[in-house]
Amino acid sequence: MIALLLALLAIQAAPAAQPAAPLPSDAVAGDWRAIPDDELLVMTLSGNRAVVIRLAARFAPAHVANIRTLARAHWWDAASVYRVQENWVAQWGDATERKPLPSGVVDVPPAEFEIGGFAPAQMLPRPDGYALRAGITADGWPIAGDGKAAWLTHCYGMVGVARDALPSTGSGAELFTPIGQSARRLDRNYTVVGRIIEGMQYLSAMPRSDAPLGMYATEAERTAIVSARLASDMPSGERPRFEYRAADTSRFAALIASKANPAPPTVPTGLTVCDVPLATRRVATRP
Amino acid sequence: MIALLLALLAIQAAPAAQPAAPLPSDAVAGDWRAIPDDELLVMTLSGNRAVVIRLAARFAPAHVANIRTLARAHWWDAASVYRVQENWVAQWGDATERKPLPSGVVDVPPAEFEIGGFAPAQMLPRPDGYALRAGITADGWPIAGDGKAAWLTHCYGMVGVARDALPSTGSGAELFTPIGQSARRLDRNYTVVGRIIEGMQYLSAMPRSDAPLGMYATEAERTAIVSARLASDMPSGERPRFEYRAADTSRFAALIASKANPAPPTVPTGLTVCDVPLATRRVATRP
Repeated sequence: MIALLLALLAIQAAPAAQPAAPLPSDAVAGDWRAIPDDELLVMTLSGNRAVVIRLAARFAPAHVANIRTLARAHWWDAASVYRVQENWVAQWGDATERKPLPSGVVDVPPAEFEIGGFAPAQMLPRPDGYALRAGITADGWPIAGDGKAAWLTHCYGMVGVARDALPSTGSGAELFTPIGQSARRLDRNYTVVGRIIEGMQYLSAMPRSDAPLGMYATEAERTAIVSARLASDMPSGERPRFEYRAADTSRFAALIASKANPAPPTVPTGLTVCDVPLATRRVATRP
Repeated sequence: MIALLLALLAIQAAPAAQPAAPLPSDAVAGDWRAIPDDELLVMTLSGNRAVVIRLAARFAPAHVANIRTLARAHWWDAASVYRVQENWVAQWGDATERKPLPSGVVDVPPAEFEIGGFAPAQMLPRPDGYALRAGITADGWPIAGDGKAAWLTHCYGMVGVARDALPSTGSGAELFTPIGQSARRLDRNYTVVGRIIEGMQYLSAMPRSDAPLGMYATEAERTAIVSARLASDMPSGERPRFEYRAADTSRFAALIASKANPAPPTVPTGLTVCDVPLATRRVATRP
């Protein structure tokens, strides 16, 4: 049993190697860099299940500003995960549509569907069917571009802003994450505000709804959000701290190469931007 | 709320159009064709949850022959779903490794990682990062090719054969399905034997295991398989019948075109083989 699982692992993870020997793709201490406390949103679901979201502050500043205001107003407390659609998205916020937004929240921020320039630290080997070019930024975000524009990619676990029809861009009060095969078709059409770096399994394993659009038909089906806080607003003793693995290193280049070119007898079949592991790690809370 | 969900739907599904007016991409009656009863495997999980698998008999005949023998021997009865790894696979079979295979099952069938020629009824617009060419066969299977070889693609919900290290190809007794973002890296390295056409949500929403490789650490975590039967071996009154939507039609070409070129203001971002909806439908059981 373990053997047949290892065969799968050999393709899923790095090529087989002596477990003891460090790989050229292994991170070194200096590759781990701190995520600022105000770029961590801790959403606690019922049952004390913490979902930690890294906010893409530099790519979606207007929407992240709204999200910070919403968190500081405790706006999501007693909100819920109200939509879980099979092979598509889990979505949360205010299912009642009646809860006013706190002052300071811009109802329709400027579109942040696209980001500034395409400047990855690592490029993926080839076009992926959704973009001519894709790569990973030095600070560990998956991006794509076409020579003119660039955008964050809707990989599994990324966090997007639900919206009404254009010109609405969404305020950031209603958020979703892809739980299925691909939401890359949303690229350039929705604002990406972050990525779930811990607790994704709580959202991905929620019961699917058969109702239209995967909206839970009854309140009882929804999962309550107990609270959503910026780490920077939490008591220092309780404040989670995370680091991301930087991509502007020869180790990260080796990681991509190792996955793009697995050891024989595995037949290489390609590697796309959403296949690249973007590692983060929880580090000790300050005393 | 509905409005912002519709915005997502507009991209997920066909471009917006008058609900009443038929679309060029809509199937007509003749597009629905019967799936043979001996190409339907009905796996019933505890709680009377039916997972229906369409078998890829013409692409993996040796492994499908094993699967038919295993089903007729009731080999999976009292087996289990023993592995659910976040953003990777759900896997089922005999977690004990002690259950002998029934006579007639070939322990190491010939490799069926690749199929015959690349002969899709519909081609996808461009390479997708895993293959130079991809498309959908007339009978509704997703395939890819590189000019020399062709293979079924490990899309979400496809069913693959777990195996030990090569030269093992797996017998078909241990099966898995991708529940996450992408398992395309498994293409050409594992035998694909089918696709889940009903009940996928029961596997995709199972609790993830934190244990190595997502193997449930305790028997209590596993989901029992009550039975697994070929529809052709079920009493005619209980026998489920399904049809697939044929892809060798102008309607299917229009479906691909509509998804590859969504209506403005949606920005088109590409369409890959695993994004194409491969519709099946349950039809009335014979009296």
